[in-house]
Amino acid sequence: MPATLPATSLELRSRVTADGTIELSIAETPVPVPIGNQVLVRVDAAPLNPSDLMLLFAGPNLAGARYSGSGDRPIVTAPLAGGTLRRLAARVGISLPAGSEGAGTVVAAGVDTAAQALLGRTVALAGAGLYAQYRITDAAGCLPLPEGVSAKQGASSFVNPLTALGMVATLRREGHTGLVNTAAASNLGQMLVKLCRADDVPLVSVVRRPEQEKLLRSIGAEFVCDSSAPTFTEDLVAALAEASATLAFDATAGGELAGRILTAMETVAGAAAPFAGYGSSVHKQVYVYGGLDPSPTVLARNFGFAWSIGGWLLLSFLAGVGDDERTRMFGRVAAELTTTFASGYTGELTLAQALTPEAIDAYSRKATGAKYLITPQAEGN
Amino acid sequence: MPATLPATSLELRSRVTADGTIELSIAETPVPVPIGNQVLVRVDAAPLNPSDLMLLFAGPNLAGARYSGSGDRPIVTAPLAGGTLRRLAARVGISLPAGSEGAGTVVAAGVDTAAQALLGRTVALAGAGLYAQYRITDAAGCLPLPEGVSAKQGASSFVNPLTALGMVATLRREGHTGLVNTAAASNLGQMLVKLCRADDVPLVSVVRRPEQEKLLRSIGAEFVCDSSAPTFTEDLVAALAEASATLAFDATAGGELAGRILTAMETVAGAAAPFAGYGSSVHKQVYVYGGLDPSPTVLARNFGFAWSIGGWLLLSFLAGVGDDERTRMFGRVAAELTTTFASGYTGELTLAQALTPEAIDAYSRKATGAKYLITPQAEGN
Repeated sequence: MPATLPATSLELRSRVTADGTIELSIAETPVPVPIGNQVLVRVDAAPLNPSDLMLLFAGPNLAGARYSGSGDRPIVTAPLAGGTLRRLAARVGISLPAGSEGAGTVVAAGVDTAAQALLGRTVALAGAGLYAQYRITDAAGCLPLPEGVSAKQGASSFVNPLTALGMVATLRREGHTGLVNTAAASNLGQMLVKLCRADDVPLVSVVRRPEQEKLLRSIGAEFVCDSSAPTFTEDLVAALAEASATLAFDATAGGELAGRILTAMETVAGAAAPFAGYGSSVHKQVYVYGGLDPSPTVLARNFGFAWSIGGWLLLSFLAGVGDDERTRMFGRVAAELTTTFASGYTGELTLAQALTPEAIDAYSRKATGAKYLITPQAEGN
Repeated sequence: MPATLPATSLELRSRVTADGTIELSIAETPVPVPIGNQVLVRVDAAPLNPSDLMLLFAGPNLAGARYSGSGDRPIVTAPLAGGTLRRLAARVGISLPAGSEGAGTVVAAGVDTAAQALLGRTVALAGAGLYAQYRITDAAGCLPLPEGVSAKQGASSFVNPLTALGMVATLRREGHTGLVNTAAASNLGQMLVKLCRADDVPLVSVVRRPEQEKLLRSIGAEFVCDSSAPTFTEDLVAALAEASATLAFDATAGGELAGRILTAMETVAGAAAPFAGYGSSVHKQVYVYGGLDPSPTVLARNFGFAWSIGGWLLLSFLAGVGDDERTRMFGRVAAELTTTFASGYTGELTLAQALTPEAIDAYSRKATGAKYLITPQAEGN
């Protein structure tokens, strides 16, 4: 290992305690020495995704938090919501690393050729523990970024781009024509607009505010429905009909939105078919891939019997994809990181800044489009 | 056609009017002459299934009904629930025949051999319009009942038996081990207990009252959970674990039951696996096959991401089954109509009696186990 590497690395940890609190802190761990096909990555940037927040906070938000610790080693503790402790029994007492993706520079490598070939390269990587200054991983788990693409540009190379590609792949695999996405002004939602245009998939973007509709139209979205508009139901039915959309991906999950989408799909299907006592025979599918609204999902079931709603998880999707398709997907993401799959961030935070009340308040609000990047190498850690 | 056949047949009709009412009446129609491979069946018995009531009433119940007409030609009219008219636009003005299954005697037949072979036989049949004195159908659509099995015994040869067989077939096809059924004290639930014992499928029956638990145990049910018991959650988790049940069929649909079953399944799956931020990877499936509780389905989503809930419709299931399997299923039903697939009825009603306030009150209550048979040939029509 070069002499310039420090002996220890700071990393963000999340721990659930037996008395029902969640504790966020910064741990100092030895920097490991890569062997064989391993590489050591100096992490330069890692995004705060909604799924990362779920792991960090052990729930949808961090209510009633107390802040302690010193300036560069802050500690945040908060009581868990009722019922959470039982569900998280397997986490109790374990200091979990967090941060599911990021990018940085390979600063040390094991002796294997594949590892050595990455020395000095800027790479993206996925897996737990990217909210850290250094992260060891297998060479095969690294996505080398093209010349001229920075670590910050490549920090979100996995979760959002692969989710967008996974949605389109799911549409093809399950035989749908058009797609619906909710909370669609997000980074992911914007990627999906660009991807669906490129791949010729009719996409209906559901947003929650007029300015979000404007934003999506400005990047080329054809069908955008604002759920705050009084004409939302009619708008949605018209857009679904034009887009032939019978598949929806719902990031909000809670409340009535998923059910309203199914109802609107059935309205379209019913208008095109003779009366059937059990509703249309057109299969209507909603996949829940987030939980922006933690309240229960409420389904009025006025959409016949040809429907399904279920969880959709990127890791499960990828596990069901062949090696060839996965390689093709990774290649496309790398090639289009500054175009189709470009991400934008509201701000950057050091590890220590990420545990301040102001920062937590900002990034846990889950306002669509507000997204932060953790920069573990920046001054202040 | 033999001279003994009448010129006209009485049959029950349901009509939605443009001003938002539902009208039930008895129509007199010419008795058709069977040609080619057709047979004419004198209908002796047809059950009032929950799905038949949905079609008859155009909704979950018949609130605010007015009764008119003469003694043997009663008419019932009721206002439709809000929103129903729009959903049923395709039905408006159409006088729909009702009754989706029944049994009777073949009293006339077309010249084809298959039709002639059925003359005089007692057969079961499915399809709209069995709440009628006479029904014409294709010979191929008849299930000849074994010697000694009466029309009343064979009246419910399709909906419940095939649904029970379809549930077990779905379990095998989707790779589950054990099964959950709700509203399990019903005729169908009792059939399923007997079928699952015969086919060695672990079955968890969810009932709503202690006496229903007793009933199911008396016919050999191993796992029965009473949702009115204070220990229901713990009972359910224990039963699901023992039965390895990751598939549920829910006849109630409304409220929190489906979600509670998913939560209990996840509790079992989570206890057997290390902590995973997105919940267990064990896929948990609920199929909604009825709507005994018309209120919205409420899902708390505290069961990870490996789950799905969707509609399950017998006709869609049968459409996806090969001819061989369908023939095997019909054969098994016929052979076991007085054992595994035996039905019990609370009472019998003529066509006219079925439109009296007392009868409607009794059969629309949907009390589990209360089930009525329409007998169109009985005195009083």
